[in-house]
Amino acid sequence: MRPFVYENPTRLYFGEGQIRHLTDEAVKLGRRVLLVYGGGSIKRNGVYDAVLEALGAAGAEAVELPGVEPNPRISTVRKGAQLIREHGLEWVLAVGGGSVIDCAKAIAAAAVFEGDFWDVISRRAKPTGALPLGTVLTLAATGSEMNGGSVITNEVTKEKLGWGSPFTYPRFSILDPAYTASVPRDQTVYGIVDMMSHVFEQYFHHDEQAPVQDGFCEAILRTIVDAAPKLMEDLGNLELRGTILYCGTMALNGTLSMGVTGDWADHDMEHAVSAVYDIPHGGGLAILFPHWMDRASARYPEKFARMAVNVFGVRPDGKSAAELAKEGIAALREFWKSIGAPTRLADYGIDDSKIGEMAQKATAFGPIGRYITLQAEDVEDIYRSAL
Amino acid sequence: MRPFVYENPTRLYFGEGQIRHLTDEAVKLGRRVLLVYGGGSIKRNGVYDAVLEALGAAGAEAVELPGVEPNPRISTVRKGAQLIREHGLEWVLAVGGGSVIDCAKAIAAAAVFEGDFWDVISRRAKPTGALPLGTVLTLAATGSEMNGGSVITNEVTKEKLGWGSPFTYPRFSILDPAYTASVPRDQTVYGIVDMMSHVFEQYFHHDEQAPVQDGFCEAILRTIVDAAPKLMEDLGNLELRGTILYCGTMALNGTLSMGVTGDWADHDMEHAVSAVYDIPHGGGLAILFPHWMDRASARYPEKFARMAVNVFGVRPDGKSAAELAKEGIAALREFWKSIGAPTRLADYGIDDSKIGEMAQKATAFGPIGRYITLQAEDVEDIYRSAL
Repeated sequence: MRPFVYENPTRLYFGEGQIRHLTDEAVKLGRRVLLVYGGGSIKRNGVYDAVLEALGAAGAEAVELPGVEPNPRISTVRKGAQLIREHGLEWVLAVGGGSVIDCAKAIAAAAVFEGDFWDVISRRAKPTGALPLGTVLTLAATGSEMNGGSVITNEVTKEKLGWGSPFTYPRFSILDPAYTASVPRDQTVYGIVDMMSHVFEQYFHHDEQAPVQDGFCEAILRTIVDAAPKLMEDLGNLELRGTILYCGTMALNGTLSMGVTGDWADHDMEHAVSAVYDIPHGGGLAILFPHWMDRASARYPEKFARMAVNVFGVRPDGKSAAELAKEGIAALREFWKSIGAPTRLADYGIDDSKIGEMAQKATAFGPIGRYITLQAEDVEDIYRSAL
Repeated sequence: MRPFVYENPTRLYFGEGQIRHLTDEAVKLGRRVLLVYGGGSIKRNGVYDAVLEALGAAGAEAVELPGVEPNPRISTVRKGAQLIREHGLEWVLAVGGGSVIDCAKAIAAAAVFEGDFWDVISRRAKPTGALPLGTVLTLAATGSEMNGGSVITNEVTKEKLGWGSPFTYPRFSILDPAYTASVPRDQTVYGIVDMMSHVFEQYFHHDEQAPVQDGFCEAILRTIVDAAPKLMEDLGNLELRGTILYCGTMALNGTLSMGVTGDWADHDMEHAVSAVYDIPHGGGLAILFPHWMDRASARYPEKFARMAVNVFGVRPDGKSAAELAKEGIAALREFWKSIGAPTRLADYGIDDSKIGEMAQKATAFGPIGRYITLQAEDVEDIYRSAL
């Protein structure tokens, strides 16, 4: 294990009916709140009403910022920060999935930042603080509800960049499985791919003596592999929704990366694709990750062999690590396909015309990945294999 | 999964050399600190000097409370609270194992409590707050470094009671594997039994749909079962010390009990034994837990069968759950014996003369346990089987 510092101050309210705690939190954080949400599904499924009722019980008034995009944009962040300044708001409440929460984090930090907040996201400046942030989660996917990270797209420069800070951990997050029950099939699948990808990014590391972390990763992956197909048959099942919801949060709240250094190249590669083509993040990951695995396992097959046995139940039976690795990656491909994830860039109409541009974007800050290192030409190879 | 609220604000500094962060923490928390420690081993192994140096670099002055007992006493708590009031101290630093940290938690809360703090520990009053607390851990065992719980003994009434509060989570804990390297063999074993027992208390629950939590429990148990025998052969091995240290913290920081209701009867039973006989907590648990398992598995064999397969590698081979459960419990007995844990109350010279008294103490607040419910006479049976 490597030396590490771990801290996660987010208070988690998990389970049906936990929205009632929003009232107490609003009493603590203030009466003037910016309410950030997305395309309006929360108005159809009753979450919006429940949120306003809980805020109202605290005497809180919300100024609204609806319409946050699936890949949230810096222009929306600027708009949110402007609303906060204009109306003298005290805190930010995100009601939605990872995109809404990521946007709200950027807004909360931009509201107290002097200057253009894109400088922070593009690592030319450091955040100086943030207003308090709370979340009501409506999509099991990114884990943003319990970490300080955020991904924002600059629609002008066509960059999609991750950033994060200790200031932007939510003070609280409300996770009610019923609030995710009306998520449609495709979004449910993308969320499942996303959370599994987060585990993979942390599972593939070269740090010795991290058996607890490796076992935790495998427990989450096994749980998803078991629960997801059942959920696909029964999308309204709240027990299964709860299991998947919990997996998404645990996959990226810092627990799995204590003492290990994850890879994260696939996220860089996918962000470049969806910055150029605006495709769903989970869809892009489902397409790219198996190809990265082909490449990484050719050099380091052992961890992939372990994944095959411990996650997908492949029988070892005297097979070599390379053989097991191949079977494990095939099992992952089959699993993702079985729940309806895309398998090729062509599924989104993406051809080879912008591969060079995307590879440049993915490696804009230098070579990517820690498990294996990828230069721009390696990234091009992976994109090409995924066409 | 049950609805739950989770929050753990403790900042963890894990790894060799992390003591350097103590200086920054002292700058934040104040110059006047109560330094709480135990029998003086920290003066022999250099930890005391490193702590004073780090405090000194922050310009902090320590008033010392040495001599905290292995089962910390309410009289020591009162003494610590008195020192804080006399000297106007601002925060508490515990340097030691679980007993020292538990005592420091009680001191931090007693210092701001009006009245007799035993009323809080015996659940007749609620804590009203606490001074900030930091810890430097020197023993992998109780997990107290990352939770709000504490166990205190009243040497007059011969009661040993657990209590806890959100106020008494350490602000920070420094976990350096090298600081645990000189822990003698028997204390190392007791610590290992203690952390495994914490996992068992949370693993045996009746809540459905907690596959992640169950998998996390098994990952920690498997890791300990693998690492502990190697550590017994090589007590100074810092990688193995680090692995065990990490397991102890993760076993009781709230992660394993999200959404499930643990049992905890064995802890109640052991506290009654060590309140009367002052034996090591880990030793008492090693003696009692297998007998509790015999009883619980007779009624609910399935989870014990799962433990047998997933923790101890017992081959299922068409065996019944009851058969697997027996093999699993036998494997646990063999494992604890193999690392040198005691197996019978007679190992501490305990006979049947105070069984009734201990059973009364264990059930003083009513029947104990959630996985199976134990009345006083059931507790007597378990004590008797463990003679």
